[in-house]
Amino acid sequence: MKRFLSGITPSGDGSLHIGNYLGAVRQFIELAKSNETFLMVADLHGLTTIQDKKQLQNNIEILILNELALLRGFLSKDEFEKIVFFRQSDVPMHTECQSILNNVTPLGLLKRAHAYKDKLAGNAMEEDINVGLFSYPMLMAADILLYQADLVPVGKDQKQHIEITRDIAERFNKIFKKQVFTLPEPYIPEEVAVVLGTDGKRKMSKTLGNVIAMFDSEEAIKKQVMGTYTDPTRKHATDPGHIEGNMVFTYLDFFGPTSPRLRGASELSALKERYKAGKIADVEVKEYLFQTLMNYFAPARKAYEELKANPNVVTDILKKGQERALIVAGQTMKEVREAIGLVTKYSFQR
Amino acid sequence: MKRFLSGITPSGDGSLHIGNYLGAVRQFIELAKSNETFLMVADLHGLTTIQDKKQLQNNIEILILNELALLRGFLSKDEFEKIVFFRQSDVPMHTECQSILNNVTPLGLLKRAHAYKDKLAGNAMEEDINVGLFSYPMLMAADILLYQADLVPVGKDQKQHIEITRDIAERFNKIFKKQVFTLPEPYIPEEVAVVLGTDGKRKMSKTLGNVIAMFDSEEAIKKQVMGTYTDPTRKHATDPGHIEGNMVFTYLDFFGPTSPRLRGASELSALKERYKAGKIADVEVKEYLFQTLMNYFAPARKAYEELKANPNVVTDILKKGQERALIVAGQTMKEVREAIGLVTKYSFQR
Repeated sequence: MKRFLSGITPSGDGSLHIGNYLGAVRQFIELAKSNETFLMVADLHGLTTIQDKKQLQNNIEILILNELALLRGFLSKDEFEKIVFFRQSDVPMHTECQSILNNVTPLGLLKRAHAYKDKLAGNAMEEDINVGLFSYPMLMAADILLYQADLVPVGKDQKQHIEITRDIAERFNKIFKKQVFTLPEPYIPEEVAVVLGTDGKRKMSKTLGNVIAMFDSEEAIKKQVMGTYTDPTRKHATDPGHIEGNMVFTYLDFFGPTSPRLRGASELSALKERYKAGKIADVEVKEYLFQTLMNYFAPARKAYEELKANPNVVTDILKKGQERALIVAGQTMKEVREAIGLVTKYSFQR
Repeated sequence: MKRFLSGITPSGDGSLHIGNYLGAVRQFIELAKSNETFLMVADLHGLTTIQDKKQLQNNIEILILNELALLRGFLSKDEFEKIVFFRQSDVPMHTECQSILNNVTPLGLLKRAHAYKDKLAGNAMEEDINVGLFSYPMLMAADILLYQADLVPVGKDQKQHIEITRDIAERFNKIFKKQVFTLPEPYIPEEVAVVLGTDGKRKMSKTLGNVIAMFDSEEAIKKQVMGTYTDPTRKHATDPGHIEGNMVFTYLDFFGPTSPRLRGASELSALKERYKAGKIADVEVKEYLFQTLMNYFAPARKAYEELKANPNVVTDILKKGQERALIVAGQTMKEVREAIGLVTKYSFQR
């Protein structure tokens, strides 16, 4: 059993869509079944872009509900309760560790970080970039190292974060002559695809308005599905249809095999054949997709409604998560303080 | 009654010398008599330069003893007990606040900070400068703003720190539309001179070996005094001597008027006249200085020995200081979290 850690930042509007689910949450859920799991609402990271009280509050609340509903919906009660689910800002060791790690990290390391370089490559003046964005790899390194995580699930584009974290951990261990931090490994699931949005062109993203959001109302989801890009060359339901690049079938490839209505992968193959042969209308395959999604996410949607109706349950989960996170992060920081020389003969129990 | 805050970093070897006393600690002591006083051992700042466990431990212990001995030696028991004396690393809000303030601060502000520019003006490559040094104005801003300090005593060369802190506070208050932070004023005592070392050439500094350290042994202090630069043109005790640039008289100007042996300022004037007329030997005025210093620092040296012999008393002072600092810093961070949107309907009592 390994320990893994992951966090989701409450950016956008805080809600998750099927792109987030396929690209990230699904992996946490699989890993959580057989590993020690720390899942963090990375609210402090949210501050690099969200500097508005109401928006941050709202995003945090929505993200918490969305994440918990997916975990509760797709895991057994036992599996769910084993997860340490917490808010980053509830554990003060994150910023303590960040501030200490600053001292073993050269500026050059941060200047090579993607997010900073991307910002510079845009039209941002270096002068105006905020220190939070520039130094977020420091906070991220602290997030990971505090929990002595073995694995951090990341997309291919985020592999650099883990490399920076390993580099910082190695520097610390070497300078202070003690193996305080575990060097984490990136966990990059083979099949993590970048999920395109309903426009079939760009990565699914709330900002682009090309999402299917599994916790929206049935009507909203239906609308999102009905607006999904299919095959623009097909004028009539009797025209032969193309599967490739057709987002309805792309999504069905992910979710279809699990649908009772389609009775698994063979049913999906049959559906594709009928579509290619011009024997089924777009609106019908969209209806299939809609039903499939509603069915797939039914347990998560049920959990969502229950959690939403019982805010005290959510609070208790966060409180319990904080308590468990504090123990692990506290132990690491105890070792850090000891290793760097902050523990003296005048120190007292913290 | 105003609130002021100051901190001393455990750099060098942690011990204080008469240059530190005249340039900083004496001002704290005067301010502490009639203001609300927060004095901090800035141990986290020490990490920018000290990355060795034993050295940091040692420096922190020595600095604590030195500072407390001066405060206890020169203040009444009541005045002493009113001071909130604490270690920065005992109050986790410092780094929490630092990390949050990062997000309202543009990189340009840090690039204009003296310490960073000085480092670049030396032979340091920007790439190699550590993030701790680069971002220490952020931690310093947090140190000050957490306590809603009205005044921060600084030397003229450190005025920029307060300007940066004010700038950050204003940005925060404006962005989050709430006057969370008090804008601090620098307190620059008129008569703060840069105290030259016993070589008469450079600022007094342990690294340069040109100090008189008031908590060293009597023998060591005597040796430091006897090695002090006087008047190199004077070959014999009967030659006329110069007062200007003569460090023995520079120090006597500070401490002499208080010496019972010299019976105040008029005695010092008479001594100077005798020196100028070639009626007194260098070794004799040095002996005067030695006696003057021993006398001046007697109550502080007594307090030092008592504190050193009773480590539990020191621990109790630090523990009480932490408790009081946590209340004020905790209240500020509560307002910060509220203002930025970290308090949600799922939040619980921290």
